Amino acid sequence: MFTINENYLKLPGSYLFSNIAKKVNAYQSENPEAQILRLGIGDVTQPLAPAIIEALHKAVDEMANAETFHGYAPDLGYEFLRSAIAKNDYKDRGCDIAADEIFVSDGAKCDSGNIQEIFGLDNKIAVCDPVYPVYVDTNVMAGRSGEYNPNTQNFDGMIYMPCLEENDFVPEFPKENPDIIYLCFPNNPTGATITKAQLQEWVDYAKRIGAVIIYDAAYEAYITEEEIPHSIYECEGARECAIELHSFSKNAGFTGVRLGYTVVPKDLKCGDVQLHSLWARRHGTKYNGAPYIVQRAGEAVYSDAGKAQLKEQVAYYMQNAKVIYEGLKNAGYSVSGGVNAPYIWLKTPDKMTSWEFFDKLLHEANVVGTPGSGFGAHGEGYFRLSAFGSHENTIKAVERITKM
Amino acid sequence: MFTINENYLKLPGSYLFSNIAKKVNAYQSENPEAQILRLGIGDVTQPLAPAIIEALHKAVDEMANAETFHGYAPDLGYEFLRSAIAKNDYKDRGCDIAADEIFVSDGAKCDSGNIQEIFGLDNKIAVCDPVYPVYVDTNVMAGRSGEYNPNTQNFDGMIYMPCLEENDFVPEFPKENPDIIYLCFPNNPTGATITKAQLQEWVDYAKRIGAVIIYDAAYEAYITEEEIPHSIYECEGARECAIELHSFSKNAGFTGVRLGYTVVPKDLKCGDVQLHSLWARRHGTKYNGAPYIVQRAGEAVYSDAGKAQLKEQVAYYMQNAKVIYEGLKNAGYSVSGGVNAPYIWLKTPDKMTSWEFFDKLLHEANVVGTPGSGFGAHGEGYFRLSAFGSHENTIKAVERITKM
Repeated sequence: MFTINENYLKLPGSYLFSNIAKKVNAYQSENPEAQILRLGIGDVTQPLAPAIIEALHKAVDEMANAETFHGYAPDLGYEFLRSAIAKNDYKDRGCDIAADEIFVSDGAKCDSGNIQEIFGLDNKIAVCDPVYPVYVDTNVMAGRSGEYNPNTQNFDGMIYMPCLEENDFVPEFPKENPDIIYLCFPNNPTGATITKAQLQEWVDYAKRIGAVIIYDAAYEAYITEEEIPHSIYECEGARECAIELHSFSKNAGFTGVRLGYTVVPKDLKCGDVQLHSLWARRHGTKYNGAPYIVQRAGEAVYSDAGKAQLKEQVAYYMQNAKVIYEGLKNAGYSVSGGVNAPYIWLKTPDKMTSWEFFDKLLHEANVVGTPGSGFGAHGEGYFRLSAFGSHENTIKAVERITKM
Repeated sequence: MFTINENYLKLPGSYLFSNIAKKVNAYQSENPEAQILRLGIGDVTQPLAPAIIEALHKAVDEMANAETFHGYAPDLGYEFLRSAIAKNDYKDRGCDIAADEIFVSDGAKCDSGNIQEIFGLDNKIAVCDPVYPVYVDTNVMAGRSGEYNPNTQNFDGMIYMPCLEENDFVPEFPKENPDIIYLCFPNNPTGATITKAQLQEWVDYAKRIGAVIIYDAAYEAYITEEEIPHSIYECEGARECAIELHSFSKNAGFTGVRLGYTVVPKDLKCGDVQLHSLWARRHGTKYNGAPYIVQRAGEAVYSDAGKAQLKEQVAYYMQNAKVIYEGLKNAGYSVSGGVNAPYIWLKTPDKMTSWEFFDKLLHEANVVGTPGSGFGAHGEGYFRLSAFGSHENTIKAVERITKM
């Protein structure tokens, strides 16, 4: 008689964004006339940039002819894309990352969920609290946790590193030594950043205790300040202790196009075993490459025209971030984030819980945000608003919230 | 100190098709003038059908406007695609499968590798021998096997079901009861088929012993004979014991486009737990949907124009299968498959090993095939040729082999 993976049953309720979608759909069907404004899930709203559209059409045409048709892609991704990434995201920033240390994928969500597979089940996991739920849930599914404790809202056996106002939402080293540390800066959900000096301390710490850092850089395109690192490989020694995840979803609007990449430096080893070879094995065995047309679209992100157009697109969203940040601040809300990140993290008023504030916002302002408690116990009493709406809707949403 | 997933180290050498690529690349760089014909990896060569190209262009244009732009896709896939699948692949064939039992993905390789995650690590796995390596390797990676035994070329703790000439390459029930049974018909690599009556016996057997069948139907579009089932759900009771995997790679040439789907019927349960809800949880947590433009391309596969064009495309490849099958048979080779499948399975001459024959073919005929032993111990002494080349190259390859 077959058995199921019992670890799945440890997960309370369903995935955060699915829950939100259900609540919103229920409200919308009861109130069909309500014009709901969505500042919840981090989905983009601006169309793909012209340079990307052009690259997609061109690649589609290639697929229409036997001479230029492309079947299975190379395991790691096409050389043209990996070279563009290595040059633009690393070499030009003074980071020592080679094209063959880059693994192209269909997005950072998959990679951040799958990367734990190459590690033993006995590793102690440390995550920020609040945190992007995928890091936690995928380790629970694999069996790297005990049961869920409804009182602490934590899983037994995992290390939670509180990110609070007091520490500017940058975690301190945990009391117990972890083996695998997930960090994401600019942070989802808090919008907080880490300085290069602070990140260097984390790299030194990881090397000292023999831990791996899984560094999620999905939001690096939103960095506006000088001293904030775009990559963990700007820090000395990171090649020996860090894996970095990248997305094209937020810098290029690829949430519905699906493209990302992961960097596993060849210097990152456990004894004699390169993690690079393990991840290559996983990629070769369980994955079959991102679509050719999508990889060509990714290449266009690094073209001169693409870069210029996407700089404008990011600026468009950051203008929204400013509208939300300043609008709510002026209305008396306690807000952070929004300067180097497309997320604004606000304290719920009147000691409401995150979900109470979610319901209030949905029902009274017809605005959808993301409850901070969905990201962990220390997210309780906080709320995430995203800058990925249109200008018009963002202004309207801030007006509705401040009038509420 | 972090640890790695030691199960990865059990896997001998690297993935079959990566190995082949390395050998071919090495030969090509030493012999740059050699015109190598590839009948190895099951990659298609014909361009995408016009109806699919049209759908892709149209969807790309939608992504260029804010009003028609599409961000994150629904977890299970777009309704328009799931409905088309439910109607065409199931309802029209008399199978009772609903649209919300279909999970759209980026391909059957990923799904066939990932599906094991929702099961416990204590399940006993049964696979055909020879077999598509992904089923075995992904279970080894998860820890459902002992060590690799170089003498038997088997992993300890797994059940191998020999597929031989004597049983027409259809396995018999194993002596020891398995918990999870992988079946693939029309078969990769042997090209063998199973009749509906035979498949019904497997369904009855699985229900009797409490096992799940993971049925890989990636090649169903190549079925030409009446009594061969296109889906396991043509069998009575399959809703309670079977998961089915589908690919768009072979019926529509999507190897470089990436689209597939998996069916998990809601009647398939372990106690009270629906496997459907576990797979939904995995999909929602670790996956972010196939690209919108690709799902629109998938929809076009089921349009009238798409159907007509793809019927021709499949016929084109099956003409190749006939050329290979008859050419080699007339030259005295012992061949099977090729009638309801795009693969021809041949016995190596003169008791050569599969890799010896691979090298001979590469060096003397400049033809690439796939060594049968790469698919398991009982594939030793066999060789797979694929019908996915062009007519011209297929004819040329058969000429070169028969002259050899």
